[in-house]
This record gives sequence, C-alpha cells and structure tokens, in this order.
Amino acid sequence: MSLSDWDRDNCAVEKTLTVIGDKKTLLVLREAFIGVRRFDQIRANTGLARNILSDRLNTLVANGVLRRVLYQERPERYEYRLTRKGIDLYPVLITLMEWGSRHGELEEPSIVLEHKSCGATMMPHLACPECGEPVTAHDVRALPGPGATLRETA
Amino acid sequence: MSLSDWDRDNCAVEKTLTVIGDKKTLLVLREAFIGVRRFDQIRANTGLARNILSDRLNTLVANGVLRRVLYQERPERYEYRLTRKGIDLYPVLITLMEWGSRHGELEEPSIVLEHKSCGATMMPHLACPECGEPVTAHDVRALPGPGATLRETA
Repeated sequence: MSLSDWDRDNCAVEKTLTVIGDKKTLLVLREAFIGVRRFDQIRANTGLARNILSDRLNTLVANGVLRRVLYQERPERYEYRLTRKGIDLYPVLITLMEWGSRHGELEEPSIVLEHKSCGATMMPHLACPECGEPVTAHDVRALPGPGATLRETA
Repeated sequence: MSLSDWDRDNCAVEKTLTVIGDKKTLLVLREAFIGVRRFDQIRANTGLARNILSDRLNTLVANGVLRRVLYQERPERYEYRLTRKGIDLYPVLITLMEWGSRHGELEEPSIVLEHKSCGATMMPHLACPECGEPVTAHDVRALPGPGATLRETA
C-alpha cells in the first residue's frame, strides 16, 4: 500500500486544521501565546471585527483550546487563557514564525526567543526524540501506520 | 516595551499565514509532502473542487512554494513539486500532525514517521539548536527583537 492511496479520513493534520485551520484563528492564538487575554486588546492587535473575533474565541473555547475566566464581576468581564491542550499548539506557532522569519522578507525580527534554561537566543528546530539529531523533510520516511486503511475506489 | 504593544505589522507568523493560512492550502501541502503531485490525485485526496484546487495551486506557485513541471507533452500536463522554500514548510505540517495525533481523538495513526539515520519510529519535537534540549512553551521567553516598534496610538 502506498501512502498516496491511504484513506485521508483518519488524518491527524486534517483533525488539527478543523480546529485551527484559518488565519484569523491562528492570529488569535498568536495573541494568546504572547499573553494577551482580553477581547479588546486581542481585537486591537489582530484587527479582527468584533463578530469575527467573538466567533473565533467561541470556537476555540468549544474545542477546549482556550478557557474563559471571569476577571471582573460588575459588569461581568471574561478573559481567555490557553488550556493545556492549547499550550500544546506552541510548536505550530513556532514553526509558522520560523518560516516567516526565513522566507517572509522581513527586515529584522520583531520577536526573539530566549531558551530559559541555557540562555541562548535561538529559534527552536525539529529534532528526533530518540537520537536528538535535527530533523528535516529529507531525514524522515513516512510509512502507513496501524490506523491506515486503503481507500475504497468506485 | 511590552510585547503586547509591539506593532504587529512586522509579524513573522502573519507573513506565513498570508501564504498558507487556510485549511485547503494546508491540505494541498500535505499531499505535496506525501509525494502526490498531479492535479486529479490531489483533488481525489483532498476532496477540493477543481476551481478551488486550481486557485490554491496557483497561489502556492505564485508564492514560490510549489513549481509546475511539465510531465507530458501531448496534451500538455503539469505536476506540482515543492521548491526548497516549500520543503522548509515541513515543520509546520509535522507540528499540525503531532497535535492532531495527541488531541484529535484518532484511534490509531494512519502515518508513522521513521528517522532514516537512527531508524527510530518517532514524532519530531522542538529542540533548542544551542543546547539540544526539548523546548515547550514553558521553556521560552519571548522578547522584543531589533525589528520591534511600538505601535502608534491615536
């Protein structure tokens, strides 16, 4: 069986994209990782219209990526914080940032990342958890997994 | 200056999202990384309508992520291959896959990845290129870089 013919119904990439697969949602997540939690500030930083932002926040809450937390009682005001599941999206944001830094024709980076434990200013890369070596597309072979099924053809 | 107030015009994440920030484009890239290069097969694997797929392919070619290569002369037929710039998007696809594997409630993976050099079946993770340690959101401090400018306020 070739991977070309595997049934895409069970695709992990597509599962993720059903939750975060649009630009506006990913800009909201950028703000969340920077620590911006309040509606009006997220709106100012993303330029999204109120109804669009409200829709994206509700979807992220419904999918367990953000949670609403009351921060003021009268009137009631909520802020949006990443859940554990949301924090696990950090690598997606980092890899989007890395590609934009390399290919986005920006003059200079507006954010730099510091690795707290070693102090290096760095851009994380993909590595193999077994041997620790850096991993690029050329270093990996994709194989059908236990959940792969051959697509039914008409 | 707090990162909350930095001017988002120079954002590397947003630069990337202007090129690949929609689900359909990312599904086309999934196919490209699996090695699926021809229009009809990409269409079958993504379920995209012809005009939508055509639009996404043209945009990816215009942005230098894919290139069109003639593979048949009469009639003329082209296939779509990743450029070097496109191959550099591999980490984005891997991190989307990793999150979907972890949180997408799939029963079993339909693809597994083998690290060619060490032979391990593995899921790449982010690591610090300086010290080699794994990197999560908790291990990193984001700081304003040389290109950061304070947003003008009204």
